[in-house]
Amino acid sequence: MTFVEIVVLAGGVGGARFLTGLRDVAPPGSVTAVVNTGDDVTMHGLRICPDLDSVVYTLGGGIDPERGWGRTGETWTVKEELAAYGAEPTWFGLGDRDLATHLVRTRMLDAGYPLSDVTAALATRWEPGVTVLPMSDQRVETHVVVDDPATGRRGAIHFQEWWVRHRAQLDAHAFVQVGAERARPAPGVAEALARADAVLLAPSNPVVSIGTILGVPGLREALLATPGRIVGLSPIVGGAVVRGMADRCLPVVGVEVSAEGVGRHYGARSDGGLLDAWLVHTGDRAEVPGVDVRAVPLLMDSPETTAAMARAALDAAGV
Amino acid sequence: MTFVEIVVLAGGVGGARFLTGLRDVAPPGSVTAVVNTGDDVTMHGLRICPDLDSVVYTLGGGIDPERGWGRTGETWTVKEELAAYGAEPTWFGLGDRDLATHLVRTRMLDAGYPLSDVTAALATRWEPGVTVLPMSDQRVETHVVVDDPATGRRGAIHFQEWWVRHRAQLDAHAFVQVGAERARPAPGVAEALARADAVLLAPSNPVVSIGTILGVPGLREALLATPGRIVGLSPIVGGAVVRGMADRCLPVVGVEVSAEGVGRHYGARSDGGLLDAWLVHTGDRAEVPGVDVRAVPLLMDSPETTAAMARAALDAAGV
Repeated sequence: MTFVEIVVLAGGVGGARFLTGLRDVAPPGSVTAVVNTGDDVTMHGLRICPDLDSVVYTLGGGIDPERGWGRTGETWTVKEELAAYGAEPTWFGLGDRDLATHLVRTRMLDAGYPLSDVTAALATRWEPGVTVLPMSDQRVETHVVVDDPATGRRGAIHFQEWWVRHRAQLDAHAFVQVGAERARPAPGVAEALARADAVLLAPSNPVVSIGTILGVPGLREALLATPGRIVGLSPIVGGAVVRGMADRCLPVVGVEVSAEGVGRHYGARSDGGLLDAWLVHTGDRAEVPGVDVRAVPLLMDSPETTAAMARAALDAAGV
Repeated sequence: MTFVEIVVLAGGVGGARFLTGLRDVAPPGSVTAVVNTGDDVTMHGLRICPDLDSVVYTLGGGIDPERGWGRTGETWTVKEELAAYGAEPTWFGLGDRDLATHLVRTRMLDAGYPLSDVTAALATRWEPGVTVLPMSDQRVETHVVVDDPATGRRGAIHFQEWWVRHRAQLDAHAFVQVGAERARPAPGVAEALARADAVLLAPSNPVVSIGTILGVPGLREALLATPGRIVGLSPIVGGAVVRGMADRCLPVVGVEVSAEGVGRHYGARSDGGLLDAWLVHTGDRAEVPGVDVRAVPLLMDSPETTAAMARAALDAAGV
């Protein structure tokens, strides 16, 4: 029996759903998820890791299936009370159940545990069936350069403020990874990449999820050194974003909102880029020189279609 | 018009209720409460001040009238989730609404604000109608020396663990005020005492509420220097504790569980003690040499009886 190791770079909601499909088709214990932490934020004194939580909740059956984020059966008592005190910010969806996760995390971080250890500890409750690693133990936060709608003055706001408060409707001039220069891949990330038979880029936001992970110094190099094939899955289907607001991010970095645009943005591994293969949705066309482009169904509207999509990615990786 | 100033030393539930009656009979803006913070504790990374919260919630109409502590309409979602993570302790009644108060407080304390400023900020929401001061801005926590029921080994546990987890049923050998040597009265406490026309010792626990307040270095001296009369109200009625578990505390410091026992424990101001007057419940008898002992109804079973009791205390103070 040959043991297979698969590494996935993933953001939150879309990455989490893709991982459920991959877990269904991959050998038990074979999957390691390297998750974006650039969306992380401290609010009300709590350390919040939206993508890590989306992944762990989704894989552990705790996610709200309607919203796609946050906890099922969520209540909002604390949020209402914080608003009654006038405690800012009030625009962030801080649910009571979710908040308990943040309390446990914050307490452990304050006690000196690195985020990777905290993530592993939280996961013992959820049994995600996948090894979940933060991209980095160091704090790296995405900020967005925008013009303040009130004053017109240019400045940077935290990604969450742009994404949640402004619903990504303020024009972004740039994304900045604050703290990236001091970051390195979390323990286990480079090791998993060095052993991987396949590395999959989940159909997550290419800029603020996958791009942020790749922005951790040393991570891109570790990825390119992997012995496995690198397969990306397009988050753009029929010229549109399936979920999230990647169409508000891609133009900021000069990338066309299309399967071909994102594929070319990642580029061919043989030509200084990342990809050995690129999966686009059936009917979409994409030419990415030097890359094995395959058209397969890329909709994750049921466990079966999600598993089939993961299977196609493993096929493209030769696993 | 003569402006009157009244200072009350108070613990949590009983002190809070007494303050509602006093607010009903005292001139607006005349009352300052100096509240015990020896019960304060940090749990799940949150700074919790049970007595301050009981006072502010009660005066602000936010208290649960059945339990006498915590918030009305309380829910317990976060507590259940913390237990699902195995996050200790699980025995503390951490309600969702209450938790929002602790979040705001912890965030402000972490930002460097002293507890007295934080208390004032929280009170702006509740409009208690009374100036509420912590006894000290320094952290002073009551610990209880007990024999561990499992091992028989003697050690100290936090007051909350003794009070809530063990319901004060473990025999206490001593109460220790951890941190008291570095504490001083909070801003405003000594000033209020120096101006007071009357100082009332609420019918709170004489050991772990009033005794803890008096244990703050300099506070007893400031109290004794007050120009007003000092009037105590007995928390023991008919030889029994009306609420709380003072009967588990008084014997530890060698005081009889009776109105006379507590009165003598406080002692006559003219003889090295505290009291000018001592109010006991109608029908109780107490001889406290050098103290004006008065028997009046000391039940706080309605707003009217509570107000009458406060009125009797002001009468005894000559206000």
